[in-house]
Amino acid sequence: MVDNNRPLAPEIGIPQSFEEYRVAQRGRQLEDLKRLLSFASVSADPGQAEEIAACAAWVRDHLERIGLEGVRSFETAGNPIVYGEWLGAGAEAPTVLVYGHYDVQPAGSPSLWTAPPFAPEIRDEAIYARGASDMKGPLFATLCALEALIATGDGLPCNVKFVIEGEEELRADELDRFVAENPTLLAADVMVNADGSFIAPGVPSTAVGLRGMVALELTVRTGEVDLHSGMFGGVAPNALIVMAQLLAGLRSPEGRILVDGFYDEVVGASAAELAEWAELPIDAEAVREQAGTIDLLDGTGSSVLERQWVEPTLDVVGMWGGFQDEGLKTVIPSTAHAKISCRLVPDQEMEPMIERLTTHLREHTPAGAELRIDRTLLGTPPATMSPDHPAVAAAREALAEGFGTEAFVTRLGVSVPVSEIVSRLLGMPTVMLGYSSPTDLLHAPDEHLPLRSFDGGVRTFASFLLRFAAA
Amino acid sequence: MVDNNRPLAPEIGIPQSFEEYRVAQRGRQLEDLKRLLSFASVSADPGQAEEIAACAAWVRDHLERIGLEGVRSFETAGNPIVYGEWLGAGAEAPTVLVYGHYDVQPAGSPSLWTAPPFAPEIRDEAIYARGASDMKGPLFATLCALEALIATGDGLPCNVKFVIEGEEELRADELDRFVAENPTLLAADVMVNADGSFIAPGVPSTAVGLRGMVALELTVRTGEVDLHSGMFGGVAPNALIVMAQLLAGLRSPEGRILVDGFYDEVVGASAAELAEWAELPIDAEAVREQAGTIDLLDGTGSSVLERQWVEPTLDVVGMWGGFQDEGLKTVIPSTAHAKISCRLVPDQEMEPMIERLTTHLREHTPAGAELRIDRTLLGTPPATMSPDHPAVAAAREALAEGFGTEAFVTRLGVSVPVSEIVSRLLGMPTVMLGYSSPTDLLHAPDEHLPLRSFDGGVRTFASFLLRFAAA
Repeated sequence: MVDNNRPLAPEIGIPQSFEEYRVAQRGRQLEDLKRLLSFASVSADPGQAEEIAACAAWVRDHLERIGLEGVRSFETAGNPIVYGEWLGAGAEAPTVLVYGHYDVQPAGSPSLWTAPPFAPEIRDEAIYARGASDMKGPLFATLCALEALIATGDGLPCNVKFVIEGEEELRADELDRFVAENPTLLAADVMVNADGSFIAPGVPSTAVGLRGMVALELTVRTGEVDLHSGMFGGVAPNALIVMAQLLAGLRSPEGRILVDGFYDEVVGASAAELAEWAELPIDAEAVREQAGTIDLLDGTGSSVLERQWVEPTLDVVGMWGGFQDEGLKTVIPSTAHAKISCRLVPDQEMEPMIERLTTHLREHTPAGAELRIDRTLLGTPPATMSPDHPAVAAAREALAEGFGTEAFVTRLGVSVPVSEIVSRLLGMPTVMLGYSSPTDLLHAPDEHLPLRSFDGGVRTFASFLLRFAAA
Repeated sequence: MVDNNRPLAPEIGIPQSFEEYRVAQRGRQLEDLKRLLSFASVSADPGQAEEIAACAAWVRDHLERIGLEGVRSFETAGNPIVYGEWLGAGAEAPTVLVYGHYDVQPAGSPSLWTAPPFAPEIRDEAIYARGASDMKGPLFATLCALEALIATGDGLPCNVKFVIEGEEELRADELDRFVAENPTLLAADVMVNADGSFIAPGVPSTAVGLRGMVALELTVRTGEVDLHSGMFGGVAPNALIVMAQLLAGLRSPEGRILVDGFYDEVVGASAAELAEWAELPIDAEAVREQAGTIDLLDGTGSSVLERQWVEPTLDVVGMWGGFQDEGLKTVIPSTAHAKISCRLVPDQEMEPMIERLTTHLREHTPAGAELRIDRTLLGTPPATMSPDHPAVAAAREALAEGFGTEAFVTRLGVSVPVSEIVSRLLGMPTVMLGYSSPTDLLHAPDEHLPLRSFDGGVRTFASFLLRFAAA
């Protein structure tokens, strides 16, 4: 556990020359960011292939503009992966691999946006566009930091490699394949990922643990065809009721998961982590308000942060069957569908958890029903890095220096596939060093990044490189 | 209770002249039926308004052709209602009101049909078309019987009125309004409805009880928006799980309904009825096979016929919410939907049953969820007629004579709104005197009516009029 009370090391902080360059170039850099945000690089939309290609080309050119070397665009079966490096610190110096993605979520209905989603504009001290916060803005902040460090020529003590993909929002397999095929190119001491969020607005944080995920699709069948409820009501099984009873039995009303052994391997948080989290300006009511829910679950009696970060979950993400239109059709449905997903935490492994789920579901399927379980949905193991890794201390100090406020080491409840990929294929830990806030409307209309988050991000990334190299 | 062993009264049976006329005209009548079946009178399809109008006009003209008087087509806010009468038996003779409908269910995909649904053809001793069994074929059989009785001029001892609507498959309100506005026109001693099915193929039956129905639409809301399961999994309630738990708690796994007081008013069948039903060639395995289900429910421990006919039911007819497309979206849904319907039996009343359901559902809604209950779906009270009514004995004897085999007095599990309408508005009992079989593929592709059902229907309806007038 990092000592949060250790004073920042001012002697290795951001040099004056960096700040002068940053302030002088800020206007031009924000214009460049607007250009990057103007590409409708929506990876989920096949109609935007040209925008994707143009965006990848612009990123490649920009890496060259700021002085990176070996800049290349790797063609894949999907969207290009852009690579560039600065190895001027020499073979003895540490190397940092920076991950980013240039693709964005679909914009949804433009009418829900104040300004068009791909016509970036700055208003109210924030830059508005699809991708501003997730993650073209934070990615561009790291590039601005590197530009300044290279341009001022007196302070880049470590090597840096950038790998910037175009299919993060798709969760395609291309990045996995690329990493597997290029271990030497990507070799580094640590990966930094700016694709993450502060724990709360104004509260910088770096996460040392990510939850994993498994998912199943369920189909219940009770007979050959839907039946007339007048003729067969009272004797025919109802696939929707069977499904409802199967799903209902997975969780207690309070939210505790009732699958045998579901919590067996759960490690939880260390006493030091719990002590640090207790300092965070977050309580149950703040979480409920952020979620916009009527109430919160309390299935395990733990704190909200433990339930969000270090405890496994089970949710029904979709269920459907029978008559769903206006009015009424007097039918007894013979088929029902559902999708369920579980977030996993250390030390839960995917296959045994899927086994427990399927065993529970099969044991609770009544005699009059057949249950089909489809395991082909995506999954990701949980990922952690040691809180004692020097990159974690460097990240915390860099956030504190970059944003001028106390920073925290936390976990995250989400799954980040790239963390798992580089851990599995390259044995490399990941530092989550994002500059977004939960209030940035990621994946929603009017997505934006406050300019103070952008400025803090540029400073933080520079500070991280300096501090990590000095560690 | 009618004595099933009472011998048929041959002296009031079908006269020889009727049979000679029927056999001689059968070929032409089947061609007429083909013409009636060729109209695509799909009431649910606004694009078929011309076919509806043409079909109504053809029915009106046919009533005139066979010698009915006062033939009229009543315009309504929906489809026309056709009326015709034969009052030649005089004011002292009994009057029978015959109900029918000329509209049909949608045909579904024509590719699932062996021949086009509105190009009727006779093959394998059956007539195939949408509406052949439900109910243009059975309706036309009653018209053929009347044609022969009028034409042979020696045997129509009662008055007959026909009311033939065009919105039965829609369950619109027009018939209700028409009956309310025309009590004198429609006055009769009993209504006969040929829109029903034998209890099993080759086993003629008339039903003295129909189940009613109530239905509710449920919406569960746990928060403002769907949430990211990584960020909020473990703390945010899941509307789909709340809905599953609500629905799961409505029935035991065996099918017993768990709503307080749900069975309080249930009368069940009389000992005489149970004794008669025991003679029916129907057992649980036959019902299971007919339903095409893996197994049958056994929630109350009663016989399958009691569960189908004289016990109330609760089914989920549709449920939906969350992500239902290919793949996975890692979402915690904030909204869930379901529709439930209940079949009611004597002496259950609609409003108190709805009250019990809503009370149960509200009591089981957890603190973190809001439940909205929509009661605007259609409902029908249960309907019964006394098994001692002379029309019941006449119907049983007519079926036995018409089909040359033993006939039974049963109940039906379905709801027939017209029975409830004429009972409520005119105080008139209904005799269910249908000629369809459960194997006729009603509402499905390749709907058909065996010619022996058509022939038996013509004979049965004539026999019924003769026997009811003599009773």
